[in-house]
Formats: sequence, C-alpha cells, structure tokens
Amino acid sequence: MWNQTWLSSGKRRVSYFAIGCLLFVAAIPASEQTVLLNGFSAASSAWELDFEKGLTETLKPENAEKLLQVLTSRPHRTGTEGARLTAEYIKEKLIEYGFHPEIDTYQAYLPAPVSVSIELLAPVQESISTTEDPIEGDPFTEHVAEHPGWNGYSPSGEATGEVVYAHHGSDDDLKRIQSMGIDLKGKIFLMRYFGTGEGTKVRNAERYGAAGVVLYSDPKEDGYRYGDVYPKGNWRPAGSIMRRSIIPLWYDGDPLSPGWASVEGAKRLKPEEIDLPKIPVVPISYRSAERILNLLAGSTAPHPMQGDLPLPYKVGPGPAKLKIKTEMDNRDRPIFNVMCRIDGEKYRDQWIIVGNHHDAWIFGAGDPSSGTASLLEFARGLSELMRRGYRPKRTLILAFWDAEEMLLGGSTEWVEHHKDELLEKAVACINMDSSVFNTDRPLSVSAHPLLHRLFREVAWNIQDPKSGKSMFEAWRDLQNKYRNTPSVDGWGEFFNPDRELKEPWIFESPSDDAAPFFTQLALPASDMYYGADYGMYHSIYENFHWMKTVVDPTFEYHIAMALMQGFVSLRLANSDLIQLDYAGEANYWRLAYRALAETAMSKGVKLPLLQQAMSQIDLWEKEAQALDRAKSQVLQNGKTDGITAELNRKLYLAARDFYLAGGQSGLPTDRNLWSGSDGLLPGLTGALVKGDAKNLERQAILYLNALKKRVNTLRSLRAHLESL
Amino acid sequence: MWNQTWLSSGKRRVSYFAIGCLLFVAAIPASEQTVLLNGFSAASSAWELDFEKGLTETLKPENAEKLLQVLTSRPHRTGTEGARLTAEYIKEKLIEYGFHPEIDTYQAYLPAPVSVSIELLAPVQESISTTEDPIEGDPFTEHVAEHPGWNGYSPSGEATGEVVYAHHGSDDDLKRIQSMGIDLKGKIFLMRYFGTGEGTKVRNAERYGAAGVVLYSDPKEDGYRYGDVYPKGNWRPAGSIMRRSIIPLWYDGDPLSPGWASVEGAKRLKPEEIDLPKIPVVPISYRSAERILNLLAGSTAPHPMQGDLPLPYKVGPGPAKLKIKTEMDNRDRPIFNVMCRIDGEKYRDQWIIVGNHHDAWIFGAGDPSSGTASLLEFARGLSELMRRGYRPKRTLILAFWDAEEMLLGGSTEWVEHHKDELLEKAVACINMDSSVFNTDRPLSVSAHPLLHRLFREVAWNIQDPKSGKSMFEAWRDLQNKYRNTPSVDGWGEFFNPDRELKEPWIFESPSDDAAPFFTQLALPASDMYYGADYGMYHSIYENFHWMKTVVDPTFEYHIAMALMQGFVSLRLANSDLIQLDYAGEANYWRLAYRALAETAMSKGVKLPLLQQAMSQIDLWEKEAQALDRAKSQVLQNGKTDGITAELNRKLYLAARDFYLAGGQSGLPTDRNLWSGSDGLLPGLTGALVKGDAKNLERQAILYLNALKKRVNTLRSLRAHLESL
Repeated sequence: MWNQTWLSSGKRRVSYFAIGCLLFVAAIPASEQTVLLNGFSAASSAWELDFEKGLTETLKPENAEKLLQVLTSRPHRTGTEGARLTAEYIKEKLIEYGFHPEIDTYQAYLPAPVSVSIELLAPVQESISTTEDPIEGDPFTEHVAEHPGWNGYSPSGEATGEVVYAHHGSDDDLKRIQSMGIDLKGKIFLMRYFGTGEGTKVRNAERYGAAGVVLYSDPKEDGYRYGDVYPKGNWRPAGSIMRRSIIPLWYDGDPLSPGWASVEGAKRLKPEEIDLPKIPVVPISYRSAERILNLLAGSTAPHPMQGDLPLPYKVGPGPAKLKIKTEMDNRDRPIFNVMCRIDGEKYRDQWIIVGNHHDAWIFGAGDPSSGTASLLEFARGLSELMRRGYRPKRTLILAFWDAEEMLLGGSTEWVEHHKDELLEKAVACINMDSSVFNTDRPLSVSAHPLLHRLFREVAWNIQDPKSGKSMFEAWRDLQNKYRNTPSVDGWGEFFNPDRELKEPWIFESPSDDAAPFFTQLALPASDMYYGADYGMYHSIYENFHWMKTVVDPTFEYHIAMALMQGFVSLRLANSDLIQLDYAGEANYWRLAYRALAETAMSKGVKLPLLQQAMSQIDLWEKEAQALDRAKSQVLQNGKTDGITAELNRKLYLAARDFYLAGGQSGLPTDRNLWSGSDGLLPGLTGALVKGDAKNLERQAILYLNALKKRVNTLRSLRAHLESL
Repeated sequence: MWNQTWLSSGKRRVSYFAIGCLLFVAAIPASEQTVLLNGFSAASSAWELDFEKGLTETLKPENAEKLLQVLTSRPHRTGTEGARLTAEYIKEKLIEYGFHPEIDTYQAYLPAPVSVSIELLAPVQESISTTEDPIEGDPFTEHVAEHPGWNGYSPSGEATGEVVYAHHGSDDDLKRIQSMGIDLKGKIFLMRYFGTGEGTKVRNAERYGAAGVVLYSDPKEDGYRYGDVYPKGNWRPAGSIMRRSIIPLWYDGDPLSPGWASVEGAKRLKPEEIDLPKIPVVPISYRSAERILNLLAGSTAPHPMQGDLPLPYKVGPGPAKLKIKTEMDNRDRPIFNVMCRIDGEKYRDQWIIVGNHHDAWIFGAGDPSSGTASLLEFARGLSELMRRGYRPKRTLILAFWDAEEMLLGGSTEWVEHHKDELLEKAVACINMDSSVFNTDRPLSVSAHPLLHRLFREVAWNIQDPKSGKSMFEAWRDLQNKYRNTPSVDGWGEFFNPDRELKEPWIFESPSDDAAPFFTQLALPASDMYYGADYGMYHSIYENFHWMKTVVDPTFEYHIAMALMQGFVSLRLANSDLIQLDYAGEANYWRLAYRALAETAMSKGVKLPLLQQAMSQIDLWEKEAQALDRAKSQVLQNGKTDGITAELNRKLYLAARDFYLAGGQSGLPTDRNLWSGSDGLLPGLTGALVKGDAKNLERQAILYLNALKKRVNTLRSLRAHLESL
C-alpha cells in the first residue's frame, strides 16, 4: 500500500457546504430495500438484492482466517520466491473455486537488499540497529534478523557525514533549514516519513547535496501519540521500522519501460539511462532516531518542524556523525499478476476490474494479504452463487497484482499493456489494497467522484461487525469521531474537519493499484481499507499474530470488506443502466475551480475563463440531473427493452471526456484532467503554481473545451434515453 | 506575572490587513531624529531627545546587576517578611536617589502554604514529589525542600480519588470527557496549565464534581518542545514545578473587599461569604505527571487533548489513584506598595503611573525582580538627569506594587482607593511586570490601543543589545521569526501568523498590574517584558544564577527595558500635546466589530445596529485624523502658547468615552467598553455568547451611543485646537 501523498500534494482545506445534502440522491437505508436500486429496474433490483443476500450468507470469517493464515505463513516480498508461490497459491484457490485464472508475467527492474549497516561515528561510536525488536508471544518476530529495514530503490553505496535533521524533506523544509545558515552539502539527512512522497524527499535531498538519507516514522504521525503501541495496542512501537520504496512515482511502474508495458520482447531502457536515486537511503526506528536527535546540536528546529519525541529537535549539523552503507541487488525480475476473468452474461465487453495485490514487504498480514483473503473469499462465494444461477451481467476481472509495494508494478504494466482495450471496455476498477488494519478507525475509501454515490449506497446494505449498525453509519460516525485527528491518510481536498459529516467522506483521488487506471486512463477507479491510519505499516509486526490478537480476531471485518468490494463491483456489473454519478462529479469540479480561483487570487492572478468554466459546470450539473431523470423514467416505466450495450457503453465512455491522450504536467501518461501529479485540475494548477501565464491561458481553453464536450455528451445521452 | 489567559479567552484569529501601513503615521527611524516627535514642538523634541540621550548614557548594566543580586538574595513571596523587607529596600534606594517614597499599606486575604503532600495509592503506592530538583552549580536550588510547589488560594483539605486526565480543564474539555461516558464525580482531575485561566479551571473542576485538582505544565506548552531545558537552556526541565494563584480574577484584588479598597477601617467580608476554591489544588512537575499518566487506562484522549510527553494520554478514570493533602494558612496580611511621586513641573495634576511589582513566588529573578532592578535604575538615572535640570512636565508616580502574584493586590487596591482621582488625573499607566526572561524571543508588549503608536515610536530610539539594531527592528524581526510558534503569551485577537509583520505586534489588552487600570477605569495602560515565553516561570530556577548564566549575563537587556519603560513614560510626561492615538484606536474597534459580526453570522444572529456602529467608527477615524492634523498645525506653527492644562486634560479624558461607570458582564468593576472579562467589546460579546437577544439589543444601543459620544468629543477637541 502506498499512501496518498503524491496525489494529495498541495492540498488545501476550503470551506465546503453540504455536498451530500444538495447533490446526492438520498442513499437507500437497509430498511427500505423495496426502493429501486440506482441503475436498476424493479425486477433487476430484486434479483440483485437476492444475489447480495446470498453472498452475505455464504461468505465466512473462518474461511478468510484460513486463507490469511496460509498467505502470511511465509514472507512474500516483491520479486522473491515467496511472492511467486503466493501467486501460485491464489491461482490454485481460484481453480478450486471453479474459475480459470492465468498468471500474466512482466519484467520489472526490482530492488532487493543484501546488507544494510548504520554506524554512529561521533560524538560516540556505536551501531544503530537495522532490525526490529522481537516481541514475546509474537512468533513471527523471531525472524527479525532475517528482515532488516531497507528502502526499495536505494542504490548500493556508502555515505559518511554529519547529521542534519530535515523534518519531512520537502523543498520548503530544506529551503528553511538552508536559510538558517546551515551548509547541507555532504550531510546525512535525517528525515521523517509523511508529509511528502518518499520519491520527492530523496530527490530533494539529492538536490540539496545530501550524501545519504535516513528515514524514520515519528510518533507525531505514527506511534504512541495515537494510542497504546503493539503488542498492547495497534500503534507503532519504538523499535519498529517502516520500509518503503523511494522510487519517484512518475516512472509508471517498471522504470525501464516508462509508459509502455514490459512484456517479452518490449524495448527496455538501461538503469543508467534513468534517474533513479543515487545516494544511499535507509530507514530506522523512532527509538534510533531519538538516539541520534539527542546528539544533535545547533539551532532548535522551527516549531512546525518539531516532532513528538521527548526532546527539542535541533537541526544540527552534528555533532552526531553517521556512516550508512547499503548493498543492494537491484535488477530485472519477473512479476506475476494473477488474472481471473469471469465473462459477463449480457455485456461481455464491459469490464469491471476487481483488484488487490499479493506482494508484501514481509508477512503482509494487513497490507496486502487481508485484502487478498477477502477477495479470494468473495471469489469463492461468487462461484457458489454462480452455481445457483446468479451470473454477473458484465465481465468481472479479478486481479491480484504483483510488485505493488515497490512500484505499483503489476497493475501499471497491465494497464499499459491493455490501454486501448481498457479505454474501450473498462467501466471501473474497484481495488482493495488491503481489507483491515484498525477496526477502531473509520473505513477509508478513495475514489473517482463518479463512484462516491455508489459506495455510500452499498454501505447501507452491509453490517458493521462491532456496532451492528450499517457500514454507512459506522463509517460516518467514526469519521466524525476522528475528524480532528491528523491521520496517516489525508482526508482530501474539500474535507472540513469543523463540520459534522452527514454522510461518509470519500477522498477524491484513489491510490495504490487504482492509481494507474485513474491517472493514466482517467477511469472511474477506487481503493479502500478499513482503518487506514495504523501503526504496523510495512513492519515485521504486520503479521498473522497481530491480526488475530489486535485487529480482527473474529475475521468479521475481512468479510464486511469482501462484501463492500463485491457489492460495489456487482452493482456496476449488474445494473440495467450504468450508474456513474455525473451530477455528483460536477460539484467536485465546481469546488475545485473555486479553490483554484482562491489560490489564484492569493497570488494576485486572475484565473482565465473562470466564469465561462463555472457556467459550463452549472450546465453539466443540470444536464446530468436531467439524464438521471431520463434514466429513472426508462427504468420505472418498463421501457427497459430499449436498453442496449451501446447505450451502456456510451454511459461509461462519458468519463473519457476528461481523458487527455497526450498527458500533462510534462508527463506523457498523466492523462486525467481531474487529478494528477500537480493536484486537482492538474493542468491549471501546475501552470498557476509555476507562474506560467501563457500556459495558464492555454490550459484554461483546454479545460473549458473539455467542459463543453462533457455538456454535449450528456445532452446526447439524454436524447438517446428519451428516444427509447 | 499573570498570563493573559483570562483577558484573551474566546480569542479568534481573523484576517487582518496592514493596520500599520494604513493607519499609523510612519514611526521615526533613529537616523531622522530631526523630525518632530509625536506630540512635541521642535524645541520640545530637541529637549526630550537630549533628556533621553542623557538617560541612555547614565543607566548602567552593572547597577541593574547589583540591584537584582540584592533583590533576589532572599525569597520574597507575597505576604512574607521577605516581601516586606524588599519593599523597605526599594524605599531606601529611592531615598538614596533623592526621592520621597512612601509605603502604602492595605490589608489582603493572602494564602500561605504549611504543608502539601501527594501520594499515589494505586496501582502502586509511592510518593509524588512536591519539590523541585536541585541542580548542580545553581546554589539557589539547595533550598528546594523549603519551597514546595503549591497553588495560591487552595483551601486546606484532603482528597482521594481515581485520576481523570482533563486537558486544560475548560468547560469544552470537561463536557467532551463526560460525553465519553466517564463519571467525573469524586475524581482527582489532572489538568494542564495554559489554555484557560487557573481560576476558571478550578471553578470548572468543582462544577463537574472533582474531589481535587492536580496542575502541571506540559512540554507541549512549556518545556523541551521549545529548546534545551535549564541549566543547559532556558526551557522548563522535567523536575520543575510551576506555582500559580487559582483565585478567580473577578474578585478585584483582595477578595474580602471586592470593588473597594481595603484601607484601615474599611468594610471586609468574611472568607465564608465569598466563593473561593473549595477543593484542594496542587501543582506537580511534568516528570510526575508522566508517571501518573503512564498509570491511566481507559480511552485514549481525543487528539487535540494530547500533550507532548512520550505516551498516549488516556482519560482514565484510574487505575491511578491519588491522595492529595494541603494544609494552608490563608488569612489577612498587610501588603506594602512603594509609591514614589515625582511632581511634574508644568502639569502637576496629570499623572503617568510607572509600575512594577516587587513580590515574587520564590527568588523571582525574572518575575518580577528583573523589572524592579530596571525601574530602580531608571529612577536613579532620572534623579541624575533631574539634577542636571531635566524635570518631567507631568507627574510621574513610580509604583512598586505588592501582592501581584496572588491577586494583583497592590495595584488593584490602590486603583480602588484612588479611583476618582485617577479618573480625573491619570494619563496612562506604563507597567513593566518583569524586564527580561529570554533574549532569544521577542519583546512582548500588551497595551491599550491608544498607546501602540507610542511604543513603536520609542522603540526606534533604543538599541537592542544583541543585534545592534533598533529595538523596533529586533522586536519585529523576532516576532516574524517566531510567529508560527505557539507561545505562553497570546498574540492577541487580530494577529495573523501567516502574514509577515512590517511593524511589531502589540497585544490589545494589557495584563498584570496594568489590568486594574485598564479594566476598572478604562485607562490607557500597558505591560511588557522581553521574551515572555520562558520556562522558569514561578519555579525555584527563576533565580539570580539563571539570570546571570542563561538569560542576560551582561544585564544590557535590563537597561534596554528600563529605557523602554522610561521613554514611553517620559514622552507622555513631556509632550506639549498628549499623544494618545485616537485614530489608531478606531481601527481596532473596526476589526473587533467585524470579527464580532462574523461570530454572530456563524451563530445565525444579526448584530444589531452594525452598519450604524461601523459608520460612527469611520467618522471617529476621520475626526481623529483631523484632530491629529490640527495638533500638528499647533505644534509646527508656533502656536504652542495657547496650549493649556485644560486642553491636555481634555486630550486624555477622551479615553473616558469608553468608561462604563456601572460595569458590565455582571461585574460592577468591569468598566471598559473595549475589553473585559467577556473579551473585546465585552458587553456585545457576552450577550452574543450567552444568546441573550434582548441584552444584545440593549448593548448595541449602549455601544452606538458611546461611539457617537467619541465622535463628538473629538470634534470638540478639534474645535478647541483650531481656535488657538
């Protein structure tokens, strides 16, 4: 699991009023299931609810537990034999369930550690631990020595230098430290995870002349500040090390085939040709970080750079001096996606991709294997329901990606491989990176705005295990409870913590393996997990013992999440008329334009064509509402005979109005006008941030044209529906 | 020194644009001293600057050092023989300088500790320390055992109960904890200093059923989060205890004579007749707090209630169980103000009160004795200049108050005693509670808006010792450096940390002994100290060793601050035309009205008569600017012959437009329409917060009438000046 940092960079909080109340049709409480499901006729609704009821009765926690136990019985790190065996195991299970899975193989330039060492040279000489603490009663931690902390894509290397504490390693942080008169050249940067993407942190460190980087997770973001630490609680203990890949995400999966699939025979670059990290990077625990910070002198870091360890964070440089040494074995390795296609009965060429990844950092009991167990149990349930005659109307592609942890590899290569077909056939990608981390924290869903309504609707029909309420209510209530708590995952651009939520908040740009679908193809894609802000992330403690004793002892959340992913996918697969929410989407654009206009104003810039764009968004919203009414007419008045594959195809292809074939922000594969590496409305945002007035003018025209296209698309769709 | 919590309660940050640039006449850089001083003719300006130059040359750091050494050689706690001897010493020094001081005595109900004990009863049995750590090399800390931590006005008592962690003890905090299903009755509340006034914390605890209260200073507000702790640095160490009085400030000095002076023969209430704290209250160190917090279970406190100790703060209750026991000797004791009147040469009945207090918690090297040393050295310099013929034109009253620490006693009783004379004669009160705490942090000035311009002007003419720049520049630059750092002292209502300051920020309501002048009489009053956010506050470490090794080893800041207080006082004393800044004041009212209108809007309430009030403020501002021009005309065109005592009297009596004889907010002595116990514009704010629509209506009329009166006052003043 990747966190959302790079997608949410530059995010701001703006005032925001009652989007749910105004724009979304009231979601359907479980008690009123006679109401038509969104996109379904009465007959189809009844059939769909029977189908879902069948699944609810069929899926079993004890199965998820058994699956997770096998999946986490051995380390299955990206690029290792463990990951290959995991792929084989998944394939076997799917065959056992009666499906016909295949393993798709790509080449990827993948990292692996050989050895890592960190020595404190001054003011005292001692070793800094590269491994985590064994914990009594947790048998998995007997293996700590075999699994040192390391960062994916650190090069092999050695660096010696005085330490500078560099906060989150953002450009602002480093500029500020430099402005304090500190020479950064040749220093070892001690940086905290969070705040900025790891690729960016390391890139920044290189730009400012670092000899090496040491990363750690501060208890301000991740540790005792949030509750008891493992094994007593679910928060990161002092001796835990977070591992992460530091590859810049703009490489699109395999860095040697940026933008194209690394299938057999495809062109590959040489590692020397691309700009991978050049300085050694290692992660340590916050206990080790405290040791080093205690040995720093110099100015006290500005207050916003202070963390939560019990000392004043000083910037240095030194007197602490470190020598870090990394030996890596980074090279091409095969990756193994397990793909399982279940052809739709009615619309074979309309696809819903239902994803999870199977590679982990070590045992991966949360990330990703809880999700793998859930998806496999959903597959088993589906096979049973299919035997009872419930066959999905559209095609489901169950996808178990490989190489997510290092570079979103399996999903990205597959997207690049099947780009044209996906642009034609994909309705949506419903990914679930992991299913459960912390049942005291709210469900976290990140999704293309076209899917938000559907998630909220489905959540009424699933029971939250602990509270006994619907998932919708538990989700919203926990979000309200924690809405003032900063968390590992961002809340999104328009989240206002001062306001009580009436319905669950959904982050407006999805992460993890949904990202290539969303960014490269502008597809409706989503990702989710229950209780994302958890403390075992990418540590050896994220193992079956932890899951069984601390997180989900009854495995009921594994099932609830299997149903969430399954129902959303099946609603899309089985609807009479595809229910992507174009009206709800319009409001997100309105908010984003407004926020951008405010940013522009604060820079003394006028956003070109703002009024025109806002008018088009108003028109779009009205047209989308009219389309919704036309759809209801068709579904309620028994005109369903006129519904064709072509009509449904048009209904999901409308999402392509915001697909930009040539890319943006200088990245050929950053193709989603809604969201990309420069934030929301990335073309406009990027031009504004860079102060490029000419480009801002061009982007404003480009965006306005896309908005006009959207209005026309909706008009033509409505005409089609009204002609039935 | 009292911090500003009770005055700044309910403060909010609002957008705020360039008040300085728009409204204040550009301050006078040191390089252009040929420019006329504000309120002075050319001849008077030259004389005043010579006077100030003479003082600058005469005041000596080594004298301040010697004074401080004597003043801090023994504990001089309120109500003790040490405080009486200190008053005697001050009197002797003033006599030595050639003045004629007197000691004014009042009775006050004052607290004193006999014994304090804190026992942990469960889950383990142990004593919690009531004393601070001795520190090697600091001889004053050999006396830790003689000076346990205690809180002024805790009753004698004993309380046993499970501990609940109650954050800052605000009503919101306690409501939130209660809403978590926790029974607060009979519990011992562990509460942090800061955020809310101590009187309010204890009152709240009583309302929610606490059996006792334990207070401590968390490193989030006060400790290692800001830098190295003493003796290495200037921040509170783990074993330090902050002492504070917990009397509700609305008692106006001596609680047995609320609202009137407790002179001999005056009526006194009985302690039983007034509502003093009824449950035992004790302070502990943050090391002791960490010990107790580590033994709390229950829910993790909501994130905003977390502090900076290295553990998850849980709410409890228990299993930690405490027994606290206090034996106090609270009773009537005499207090001793040292008053030194220096009659003005020209305007004997126009008074500038120049204040400091002399009582401390223990050795008081910062609070208050650094200020006492500065004011005494200023007095010595003044006497020398007076011997050279520089005699102030208005009367200066040097005041060394007693009993500030327990209840702002000496100043309040004196204000109550001389109320009618002060309303007639007082131009301003320029108080300096303490002179220096931390020279790495900015000067802190809190003042009636009528005085802001004068402080900024004077600051150009004093050199900051470390930077060599003017005090104006050093003050502003350090404020900019730390404007994102939360501090012990608030920044005031309209401070915007996102904006670079062009001129120093001044808090709009003064604290400490300036408060009775400001609140009871609506007088232009001010308070100040250099580097207010310091960590030795009210601990045994606040001693001469600390001052000499950590704070101001050369004592140059003592002199710089003596000059600040002295110059501001002398400018007021010597001006041809009193320079209270009515134009600048108008803008503060405008901002306060705007902020209040926003608060009202957020509550769905319309502020009555808002437009009318805003129009009057506009008029007021225009009239004040016209008055300023008329004053300039008089001063620049040699019409100074027409200036009379009566004209000057009118110029300062205009401040009484906002004096409300009957009080407000249910408090008969809360008489300042600008600021009071309910915040800024207290009558309006209080009615709004309490949701009392009828009273809001009444207050709106009352305020509008005051504004109209102000406009008329200014008009009549201008007419007077133009007639010269």
